[in-house]
Amino acid sequence: MSGPACGFVRRTVDRLSDGREIIYFDDSPEYVEGRASRSLPDQRALPRAAGGSTLRYDVLTGDWVAIASHRNTRTFLPPADLCPLCPTRAGRAPTEIPARDYDVVVLENRFPAFSRTGGEQVPGTVDGVDLWPQSAGRGRCEVICFTSDHGTGLSRLEPARVRTVIEAWADRTEHLSAQPGTAQVFCFENRGQEIGVTLHHPHGQIYAYPFLPARTTALLRQAAEHRRRTGGNLLRDVLEAERRVRTRIVFEGEHWTAYVPAAARWPVEVHLAPHRDRADLAELDDAERDELSHLYLDLLRRVDRYYEGVEATPYISGWHQAPVGRDRELGRLHLQLFSVLRAPGRIKYLAGSESGMGAWINDAVPELIAARFREVG
Amino acid sequence: MSGPACGFVRRTVDRLSDGREIIYFDDSPEYVEGRASRSLPDQRALPRAAGGSTLRYDVLTGDWVAIASHRNTRTFLPPADLCPLCPTRAGRAPTEIPARDYDVVVLENRFPAFSRTGGEQVPGTVDGVDLWPQSAGRGRCEVICFTSDHGTGLSRLEPARVRTVIEAWADRTEHLSAQPGTAQVFCFENRGQEIGVTLHHPHGQIYAYPFLPARTTALLRQAAEHRRRTGGNLLRDVLEAERRVRTRIVFEGEHWTAYVPAAARWPVEVHLAPHRDRADLAELDDAERDELSHLYLDLLRRVDRYYEGVEATPYISGWHQAPVGRDRELGRLHLQLFSVLRAPGRIKYLAGSESGMGAWINDAVPELIAARFREVG
Repeated sequence: MSGPACGFVRRTVDRLSDGREIIYFDDSPEYVEGRASRSLPDQRALPRAAGGSTLRYDVLTGDWVAIASHRNTRTFLPPADLCPLCPTRAGRAPTEIPARDYDVVVLENRFPAFSRTGGEQVPGTVDGVDLWPQSAGRGRCEVICFTSDHGTGLSRLEPARVRTVIEAWADRTEHLSAQPGTAQVFCFENRGQEIGVTLHHPHGQIYAYPFLPARTTALLRQAAEHRRRTGGNLLRDVLEAERRVRTRIVFEGEHWTAYVPAAARWPVEVHLAPHRDRADLAELDDAERDELSHLYLDLLRRVDRYYEGVEATPYISGWHQAPVGRDRELGRLHLQLFSVLRAPGRIKYLAGSESGMGAWINDAVPELIAARFREVG
Repeated sequence: MSGPACGFVRRTVDRLSDGREIIYFDDSPEYVEGRASRSLPDQRALPRAAGGSTLRYDVLTGDWVAIASHRNTRTFLPPADLCPLCPTRAGRAPTEIPARDYDVVVLENRFPAFSRTGGEQVPGTVDGVDLWPQSAGRGRCEVICFTSDHGTGLSRLEPARVRTVIEAWADRTEHLSAQPGTAQVFCFENRGQEIGVTLHHPHGQIYAYPFLPARTTALLRQAAEHRRRTGGNLLRDVLEAERRVRTRIVFEGEHWTAYVPAAARWPVEVHLAPHRDRADLAELDDAERDELSHLYLDLLRRVDRYYEGVEATPYISGWHQAPVGRDRELGRLHLQLFSVLRAPGRIKYLAGSESGMGAWINDAVPELIAARFREVG
């Protein structure tokens, strides 16, 4: 892997044979300087993607649920030599990436929960009953490949490549936020078969939700109440309180602090937040992005060292960004990273209390989670 | 197994050696008529249970999270001959049940997330910060053994025994609701290793929550809004709409209807609700309990037949009851039964969108779930 040009990324947009967008984020000098090109044609002649879903309103909870029946046929743990996210190698069947190599690449998901097409015929309610509003699942689901190297992981990349990933996240956040109908953009990574990852190639996902997800709705409700009572921004005040009391701090940089939340609900959970008010990743300046590329790697490596004898702790890592429209000022960028592993070989399952009632029971004490994160630093 | 006396159950309360309560619900004639007795002493001289947890308020979501660190040592899939929920057999080590046999038995959980003792020293906030209220996790967690037969399951019992289970649920709901500090009583069953069941003996759990869980808080918010707008009870109006449009009905009895909710979020999900307004299981009359014992069995057996080649579909089944105090009139009894199995051998994992954002994506269409449930009837 050649050394990427510092902080400079070349962005190239292309189309796959079924019309989906693919965007290369190149940091290797030969691409950045234009000596090499990504523009191989996609030779697969794919049919138009099925696409889309129907959103149904769950009147008992106030949540929108996406019904996306076509996704049940999606690719499930293919062998490495059939990985759809590897570059297209000479003499091999074409993959999703019509290029001999790439640095970081983003493409529209072939089995999207939300897409920009389809669903024109969806009536406004289920069975004509006002209790059950529904609409087309307009939005966008993208896949981001962190590297062309199938056998590695985000935590094992160099900071410069992570910096390119951050550039791609920021770019997608900005573009998807500008797309009509986007309510919130979510950049996240599911890592590990224990949480249902169906492709091993190091990759994450980016969703442009057409509605505010339940966690965001709850956060905005809490933040509005906090502002009404104190005049402050809830997420900023939480960060400042954590930095003041220091009992759950994992590390502090110049621009970022990692801490375990006071009411952590997962056996391993850590949040990472910028010191300055930033609505989303696109608002981060160069200094913040630079430091983040090192600190995020640091955090991921602590996650991998968290349990003795566990080489790759399964995790879910997601960037909570401010909503795009109304109440944007109540949001504030923060990462939530957590694992379902509660001990080597033992998963925290979401059983009756969590899945049925939404009442979390955590066997781990937040202050001890933070101590362990500091210990493995 | 001897035939239980129809609808008549004898209730016997005893104590385990560490002070925990154990309550026998007997339906076999020799016990009901007093010819045999349960009163063997618990010979284990157990230490006082560790007990309790700390409730922390997650200010970002408005949820209470129970931090229960002592539970990490709980019994994990013991071999059948060490099952703590089997009766105490002659010549074997004493189990949790100091009786040679039993019909249905309820006992306080040895590793409870909520208990009536402990936590006196818990300060009112975490680190003295008002953003993070906390309190002692007062409440109660009970285990209910559906049968003394280790190798069977609730779906394979006779209706008369299920009727005894219903009597026990109703009894516990009534008693726990009367306990000071109880906000809501939840009777539920987790079935299958796929969802983290740690003991194979057929059993369920009963929680007396000291707070309103997130799903109930959301439901009450929605029900209050619905009442304000229409004057009606939300859960009753949903049931009536399902019975009117009929597209997702699984079956209808004289007193109960089973239907798949319009915005089902799980690959297999069904609700079961009484036709008359009932706040909780304790309010059911004899006719409703009788029919339920047959219809609940019917439903469980359909779940087991749902996937071809899957003998015992993992499931979570929970009775949502009206809250004990304020807003009780907004609630209405209903069962929510769901499975994480989306195909034979394939689990629906709660990954980034569900676990991180609370945005559910269901690959199954509610109307097709209902059709399948009807087909396997």
